[in-house]
Amino acid sequence: MGDGAVAVSGGVIQFVGPQHEAPLPGPATRVVDLAGRLLTPGLVECHTHLVFGGDRAGEYAERAAGIPYREIAQRGGGIATTVRATRAASLESLIEQAHPRLRRLLAQGVTTAEVKSGYGLDHATELRILEAVQALDAAQPIDLVGTYLGAHVVPPEHRDHRARYVREVIEHTLPAVAERGLARFCDVFVEDTAFSLEEAEAILAAGVAHGLRPKVHADQLDEGGGAELAARLGAVSADHLEHISDAGIAALAQAGTVAVLLPGAALFLGQDARAPARRLIEAGVPVALSTDCNPGTCMTEHLQLMLTLGMSRLGMTAHEVLEAVTCHAAAALGLADQVGRIAVGRRADLAVFDVPDHQHLPYHFGPVHTWQVFKAGVEVWRADGWAH
Amino acid sequence: MGDGAVAVSGGVIQFVGPQHEAPLPGPATRVVDLAGRLLTPGLVECHTHLVFGGDRAGEYAERAAGIPYREIAQRGGGIATTVRATRAASLESLIEQAHPRLRRLLAQGVTTAEVKSGYGLDHATELRILEAVQALDAAQPIDLVGTYLGAHVVPPEHRDHRARYVREVIEHTLPAVAERGLARFCDVFVEDTAFSLEEAEAILAAGVAHGLRPKVHADQLDEGGGAELAARLGAVSADHLEHISDAGIAALAQAGTVAVLLPGAALFLGQDARAPARRLIEAGVPVALSTDCNPGTCMTEHLQLMLTLGMSRLGMTAHEVLEAVTCHAAAALGLADQVGRIAVGRRADLAVFDVPDHQHLPYHFGPVHTWQVFKAGVEVWRADGWAH
Repeated sequence: MGDGAVAVSGGVIQFVGPQHEAPLPGPATRVVDLAGRLLTPGLVECHTHLVFGGDRAGEYAERAAGIPYREIAQRGGGIATTVRATRAASLESLIEQAHPRLRRLLAQGVTTAEVKSGYGLDHATELRILEAVQALDAAQPIDLVGTYLGAHVVPPEHRDHRARYVREVIEHTLPAVAERGLARFCDVFVEDTAFSLEEAEAILAAGVAHGLRPKVHADQLDEGGGAELAARLGAVSADHLEHISDAGIAALAQAGTVAVLLPGAALFLGQDARAPARRLIEAGVPVALSTDCNPGTCMTEHLQLMLTLGMSRLGMTAHEVLEAVTCHAAAALGLADQVGRIAVGRRADLAVFDVPDHQHLPYHFGPVHTWQVFKAGVEVWRADGWAH
Repeated sequence: MGDGAVAVSGGVIQFVGPQHEAPLPGPATRVVDLAGRLLTPGLVECHTHLVFGGDRAGEYAERAAGIPYREIAQRGGGIATTVRATRAASLESLIEQAHPRLRRLLAQGVTTAEVKSGYGLDHATELRILEAVQALDAAQPIDLVGTYLGAHVVPPEHRDHRARYVREVIEHTLPAVAERGLARFCDVFVEDTAFSLEEAEAILAAGVAHGLRPKVHADQLDEGGGAELAARLGAVSADHLEHISDAGIAALAQAGTVAVLLPGAALFLGQDARAPARRLIEAGVPVALSTDCNPGTCMTEHLQLMLTLGMSRLGMTAHEVLEAVTCHAAAALGLADQVGRIAVGRRADLAVFDVPDHQHLPYHFGPVHTWQVFKAGVEVWRADGWAH
């Protein structure tokens, strides 16, 4: 749309069309000339774990040097490192550590982001993580959506009585999260090393009973029926899916569940695995892309790089990868009717990129191409420095 | 070195050691407190094709959509697109298009970079590209090293008489490049689709006769004996090497030729291929990493991301990937005695990164961690904006 125009008023998009049909600007109207730059909906980052304590740079170095994760985990490293650091961190410290991550997401053009708990794995810390998300939501421009992922892994102290931990999640923490309005979704990691299908179903069903829609970490390392479970429970999304089965794909398509693909994790872990994006799309499953931002398996906020991986590694088209971080990512958060499209009546969350068209965004990878970011019509970031 | 200090005078490093042993600052001394940040040698980017006209975002989109490169090339696309755009570009236009790429490299912490010709493929344009490199060397802070890559591919107009093109390279362009001091190296792409071992040897030998040291694009798509040739001719580097043979590795080790690995290209092309970094290192070959910045197979200037790929994809350690973009990359440009190390007597090309140690640079990928860049002791870039 070379001569396109968008008119915004009251934080809402009022007009989208050719410039000569746009409403005439009034005296108080701010006119922004994009000079041929790319305008997109504000990007939606639909799968992060970005509230946590500490980091795992040392572990990353050990793994690259050939030490297996199992060995690192056995001596108390791996995710347990992050759980210890997160439990030890105050609310203020969690907020302070997460804030720069959100600034980097904003610089990517992100205006809505999901953040999961899951590094507390005890009642108090899981709540504290989600309180940090709530506080951060108010403290910076990106709208944040909280997801309760108490069922990330079984915490070390419950390793020998996992049923007790599942009960704690269902009977204690989940109701508190829901009652305090700290999360919109309940997520479970379904994997041999995490939770079984039965445990996941019990937790997600409890979530639904408390008004939290299900999300599922499914089929990342092995085909485990997680996608089928997500579909059966009406999950808003099934995430990872490197090893999803044909039956899983069909089930997601049938259920209208969004597939959230996270190609940065395989990259970071040195794996060749690729989620079957083409087969998902051809089956009619909406496909979203996300960073998976987390300290253990993908330490990045570079959502624009995921567009490149979506095309280069997953065979998605330039149009599909853009939908994957806008309208489909919005759908993965149950927000498809509010954000993720430039359309009359939607909130004026918009991103401007200093590229001539949408193909250049994934093509020229590395630089942050963002030029301006608008949240409900208000400029919240621009390329010559932080607006906030 | 938590309390380390570096003293610089006359653009040269005068002291490296603990702070309490450092020379006392004089009245005119500028003291820079790095506040615990990581100090490294200025990074060396040892393999780029960053002077070219146009772009290939459309081709990238076509390839992601499943159209084979062969088909794109048959209808005049692929590298021919860049050759046409480069031939059509004036010297001024080539300089103007390349300048932002160098600004991005500077922002990565790069203080020395190599740039190849190879998108002209005729006498006048190959010279013009290298003139652009020369002009850019003078116009911005990064020291540039020119490489003549007339033997990139056989240009379309010579497809049916390739011997004539090889003769043009050897008898016409190469002597002109050398006479005008436009390049330090002569490079050949040894591949089924480019040049044979015999053609490469003839061109590289002619280069040596004109004072240009050999470099070789070798074994990227197939094992083709390119590494062995590089070693035999005393090449300063052999580049790509995804399919290098055991004999090739032994030959490089014997010859002291640097292996320049370019993991961004496989990423961009969606290939699983990995150069055997560990086997190269264990054989004693110095391994460098580079972006391969070029419009067709790796459109990026993000050298810091190559550190992550070096660890995640190639199994290099955090220490090895840092050496790969400093001292070993300097060796790949024959500059090991001048740059690439923080040592007394070396030029004070230095980069400061806003991370607590060298492990965090590859670990937290995506953001540009650069804080300050010094060229011969002078600050030329800082994180709060372009110093130039």
